[in-house]
Amino acid sequence: MSLLRIPRAVPLPSRICLNLLRYGSTLSSLKKEQGTKKVIFSGIQPTGVPHLGNYLGALRQWVKLQDEPSPDTTLLFSIVDLHAITIKQDPTQLATWRKEMLASLLAVGLNPKRSIIFAQSSVKQHAELMWMLSCGASMGYLGRMTQWKSKLSLPENASPLEPAANKDALKLGLFSYPVLQAADILLYNTTHVPVGEDQAQHLEFTRELAAGFNHVYAPHSASQPLLTVPRTLLSPAKRVMSLTDPAKKMSKSDPKPKSRILITDSKEDIHNKLKHALTDSIEGVSYDREKRPGVSNLVDLMYHFDESVAASPEDLARDLKGLSMRALKEKVADTVDVGIRDIRGRYEALIGGDQKELVQHAEDGAGRAEELAEETMKRVRSAMGMGW
Amino acid sequence: MSLLRIPRAVPLPSRICLNLLRYGSTLSSLKKEQGTKKVIFSGIQPTGVPHLGNYLGALRQWVKLQDEPSPDTTLLFSIVDLHAITIKQDPTQLATWRKEMLASLLAVGLNPKRSIIFAQSSVKQHAELMWMLSCGASMGYLGRMTQWKSKLSLPENASPLEPAANKDALKLGLFSYPVLQAADILLYNTTHVPVGEDQAQHLEFTRELAAGFNHVYAPHSASQPLLTVPRTLLSPAKRVMSLTDPAKKMSKSDPKPKSRILITDSKEDIHNKLKHALTDSIEGVSYDREKRPGVSNLVDLMYHFDESVAASPEDLARDLKGLSMRALKEKVADTVDVGIRDIRGRYEALIGGDQKELVQHAEDGAGRAEELAEETMKRVRSAMGMGW
Repeated sequence: MSLLRIPRAVPLPSRICLNLLRYGSTLSSLKKEQGTKKVIFSGIQPTGVPHLGNYLGALRQWVKLQDEPSPDTTLLFSIVDLHAITIKQDPTQLATWRKEMLASLLAVGLNPKRSIIFAQSSVKQHAELMWMLSCGASMGYLGRMTQWKSKLSLPENASPLEPAANKDALKLGLFSYPVLQAADILLYNTTHVPVGEDQAQHLEFTRELAAGFNHVYAPHSASQPLLTVPRTLLSPAKRVMSLTDPAKKMSKSDPKPKSRILITDSKEDIHNKLKHALTDSIEGVSYDREKRPGVSNLVDLMYHFDESVAASPEDLARDLKGLSMRALKEKVADTVDVGIRDIRGRYEALIGGDQKELVQHAEDGAGRAEELAEETMKRVRSAMGMGW
Repeated sequence: MSLLRIPRAVPLPSRICLNLLRYGSTLSSLKKEQGTKKVIFSGIQPTGVPHLGNYLGALRQWVKLQDEPSPDTTLLFSIVDLHAITIKQDPTQLATWRKEMLASLLAVGLNPKRSIIFAQSSVKQHAELMWMLSCGASMGYLGRMTQWKSKLSLPENASPLEPAANKDALKLGLFSYPVLQAADILLYNTTHVPVGEDQAQHLEFTRELAAGFNHVYAPHSASQPLLTVPRTLLSPAKRVMSLTDPAKKMSKSDPKPKSRILITDSKEDIHNKLKHALTDSIEGVSYDREKRPGVSNLVDLMYHFDESVAASPEDLARDLKGLSMRALKEKVADTVDVGIRDIRGRYEALIGGDQKELVQHAEDGAGRAEELAEETMKRVRSAMGMGW
């Protein structure tokens, strides 16, 4: 669901791995990177209220980044609705989902005074810089990227011009969105991007586009580049699996609502969904993601919500080994409920009523983002010869 | 040179021909289309001072359209610098060329009080709408369009992913620019587009994109569509050939400066260039574009600058049949000089000095264009579910 996700513990293509190591920061190394102004940008698609996978995998991390004591860091979190429309959207639903996502970002603890929270479509400079980058982005490189193939469920060797029996299935927007994503990042002189492994090739693409652009339009200003080449920001992987099929990630697109817990679910819903979570018939609790994925996922959930209870999920499972499945599920449900209770309360206050506060936050965030974006674009337009 | 050129008398693919007939207007039929508000949009690339081919083929036609007594017609003429960067540009030269083109548009008689004259890059909504249209634009359709192939001098069957030995030669910008061109037109609810035959397939593409967009986002408002589906605007063809090689069109990209006359050329330059114009060794003047292309081009030039002297170029040639080549060239040079003398004077006044007036016109035009563009985009964003 999120555009730029926190890395998960799965192998990356070796070149990208190497670059992550070479150009990446971790949250702890970030703290030591003194003396330079940092800009962190990340985006999330407007898919309505986030589930626990989104929360533990990305949003909670964003809040942590925000709450780090580094006042010289600028943070931008964007609801990337221009990316959402690369696949078919119902406009009424998209409008609702944007609002729900905005309320969720605020509810989980992003502070609109500290972080710049805004909808991508409210800042026209995203599309503007995208076009300028397009003029340097190679079709061949884009064609070799894999994301559009997976979104259309096509094989790795699919061609963008004849992607399927229906030749017109692939739209330019879906094919070219890595360039828009590059613009999202480069518009704000982003130094660090929290990025998931499925997006790592896109960040590498962004780095190459920025370097190429600087080479063409500002070859002599190596000390202060026209576009800042961003680094990846690594963080511990938190992977939350579906409650109904623990072999799959928890996902918004799963047709079964019981496969996921939303961060606004009521106590009853949480208990009910966990009660029906798929586990196994082995007695007692133990931790083994291969052999006992369902049980391990529940232990993980509990551990991630309250890491003070044990040193690791394995330790936690040992502490709980005597519990029945039913007792485990209730314990997990209670922990989750306590963990998201405040989020739920804040969300309801924001989304209920006339939503004036919500809209005001959106407009303020867009205004602040646009100001930064326009600074960059003034330099870019001038470097390209587009001033009077 | 112009993005959207006046049609010339060359055959079109039959389907496009049919559509031109079905959906096109001529200047005279336009006058009869009463009762509806008309919007005319056209663009020209910033390639510096126009030559006679640009002037007679497009710019003079724009002035005629402007001076038609139809006060309910909105006219927009854009310097399409965002299109210019689809091929490599030197930023300093581009900056100069934009200014020279702006001064030229004003000098030929476009009135900034009547027409909206602006640089495309000054109105961010062009790129914004382009992105939105991208999400509905088929890669297959774009791949079958021919313009990117001709710009890279590639054969008709070239693939956008492997266009040449150097796989990365084709950039996304060049491949996707018909979608930006569609956005240029659709942003202003354009009803009529002066279009050349090499752009006819692009206008057909624009029509199809607009119809598809309306179908998806405003299926129930057939009476007032979300995006206006534009019509072509036909006009008599005026084709000006190179002075040094009359088999080719007069062109800015010809390495020989003597191949073209600029609309700001001095009397001496005009005489000098025409003196060296390639003709033939047949005695006297006669009109035959096949057998005497050089002489016929000179007769055409003279005729186009002063249609009062004869009923047709053929008639004019008969009137001049006793002249030597040298005398013909001097006569043509005098006619051209008289024809562009005022333009030259106005151009020099605008481009000389501090250029404050020029910049003011550009900013005023951009402001008016942006106001219209934003009206359209408000409706588009709302229809797509991108409002709060």
